Amino acid sequence: MPERKAMIPSKMMALRQKEAGGRLSLEEVAVPRALRGEVLVKMDASPINPSDLALLKGGYLQRSYPFTPGLEGSGIVVRSGAGILPRLRMGARVACSPLQGGDGTWAEYMRTSAMNVAPLPRNISLDQGSMMLVNPMTAMAFILLARKEKHKAMVNNAAASSLGKMLMRLCDVYGIPLIHIVRKEEHLQELTQAGADHVLNSQSPDFASDLKHLAEQLGATLFLDAVTGKQTSVLLNAAPAGTKLVAYARLSGENITADPADLITEDKKIVGFQLGNWLHQQSLPSKLLFLRRVKKHLDQELSSTIRYRTPLREVEAALEDYQQNMSQGKIILKP
Amino acid sequence: MPERKAMIPSKMMALRQKEAGGRLSLEEVAVPRALRGEVLVKMDASPINPSDLALLKGGYLQRSYPFTPGLEGSGIVVRSGAGILPRLRMGARVACSPLQGGDGTWAEYMRTSAMNVAPLPRNISLDQGSMMLVNPMTAMAFILLARKEKHKAMVNNAAASSLGKMLMRLCDVYGIPLIHIVRKEEHLQELTQAGADHVLNSQSPDFASDLKHLAEQLGATLFLDAVTGKQTSVLLNAAPAGTKLVAYARLSGENITADPADLITEDKKIVGFQLGNWLHQQSLPSKLLFLRRVKKHLDQELSSTIRYRTPLREVEAALEDYQQNMSQGKIILKP
Repeated sequence: MPERKAMIPSKMMALRQKEAGGRLSLEEVAVPRALRGEVLVKMDASPINPSDLALLKGGYLQRSYPFTPGLEGSGIVVRSGAGILPRLRMGARVACSPLQGGDGTWAEYMRTSAMNVAPLPRNISLDQGSMMLVNPMTAMAFILLARKEKHKAMVNNAAASSLGKMLMRLCDVYGIPLIHIVRKEEHLQELTQAGADHVLNSQSPDFASDLKHLAEQLGATLFLDAVTGKQTSVLLNAAPAGTKLVAYARLSGENITADPADLITEDKKIVGFQLGNWLHQQSLPSKLLFLRRVKKHLDQELSSTIRYRTPLREVEAALEDYQQNMSQGKIILKP
Repeated sequence: MPERKAMIPSKMMALRQKEAGGRLSLEEVAVPRALRGEVLVKMDASPINPSDLALLKGGYLQRSYPFTPGLEGSGIVVRSGAGILPRLRMGARVACSPLQGGDGTWAEYMRTSAMNVAPLPRNISLDQGSMMLVNPMTAMAFILLARKEKHKAMVNNAAASSLGKMLMRLCDVYGIPLIHIVRKEEHLQELTQAGADHVLNSQSPDFASDLKHLAEQLGATLFLDAVTGKQTSVLLNAAPAGTKLVAYARLSGENITADPADLITEDKKIVGFQLGNWLHQQSLPSKLLFLRRVKKHLDQELSSTIRYRTPLREVEAALEDYQQNMSQGKIILKP
């Protein structure tokens, strides 16, 4: 198909980071080639996620520099490498994520494995579809974890975030009581107005004892911890015996602390969750079933509020703004 | 059997603690009655264990005061409450542990559940039998855990302790490579001379990188942590991806610290182990099978070195001595 190939330029603009913590610059680089099993996606939209901030800060994953960030996005498959799956995806509107350690979505084109793209249902826009992977899949994975291990209720401590709100709506659908933890009174109000039954402010003097009683009463033995650091010891101490605490982000930037007695005497556990690792541990049939579940809820429970769209060259201002106002909605980068 | 009953006095001497951290005093108290399902054991011997020190310090388990400490011992069943099992145990030489939250073994008599006494094989002395429950069962439980979860090798960081040495011998029998961590050069020498293949000194400047390489090489993904505190973060950081760290004591007295990245990115886990909780989670058949395994190794791999025997009234000196020289062998209290 020489005509199709002719439509793809040899150069493109991409955001590049040269070292951990360094500023991003928009540079001209070569459009990558799709190898066997891979596709080339012409990017349409990419959100900024907390995991992007962690990646830009460095230390989160080992990687080589310079590189193009962006852990998810959406676009059109415009070229396919050898293989059946890549060919099947040709021309599709997809949500996509980068190769492990590869260049990301904050560019005009991205090369990735055909396994890392998911065709979007017709009723999902490319903007919403760009946020289909990280948050919706994480929220759904937590629901499945709660069901599989028979936890009667859950606790989540980044409750005002996009993910927190998705989890709230999903828990409603699946009938799992959720205790929301926020750290600002305005977020407590916001979630309560949105219909949340159990919202606690971690800055309140009674927080630890309120959490203890509520968790006991609801049988909340799955604690989702995006803050980590010192708050982990407070959560773990308030948790019922046998609780599993799942660390899935480190918004505090601190090391976890925990009282050994909670682990030894009370049989509580601390584990980690990363979507990529988790998906990797699922069988192919469970993965497909999981994806179908996520898609089913995508236009309702798993939709995100978009604050605004901005071009790639405005990334530094957008990153700053997002970091300051993380709970107000998503900022979408457009190539 | 009025004759038998007549042999048991109404009063006995017992060590008592009045508050957490308080000194022990030898006092005259009533000999307890064995209720339904229970037996009365005339105590013969009781070791001092690290878990006793933790219990005396307080905060380890919620409990009421005053109470008699001592978490294991041996003796003869001299009276039985109602029930088949208690009657079966009448007259038996047994290893025994207290009722949950009940008075312990550091007394002339102890009342306990007939489920908490285990008849001693003939070739096991009452002194050795007094140490049959806590350490031997813990060591064996770790072996079963490693086998069940298919860990290729283990790490233990209180390697010079009685438990550490049992684990060394058991790992030899079961063919599981064990990395020993000590904090004194003399213990490194001692374990190496005893035939340990992999001994590391946590005070060495290369400790973290040596541990990382050795654990990687042996596939050691089960880390047994009796020290906890800051050392937990060092262990977890050096551990291969997917490692399970089991906190089973808190010899450092500090809170655990851990880098969230180890949990999130590397899928490592922190869990606790307490023998009582663990036994409680086993089915009755597994429990019996487990006990048989422990007994089989009791006169060899699971024997403890006894430093000396001392009467109950000398307990304060013995506690002091044990705390200073924990790796030199067991001190046995005799009523």
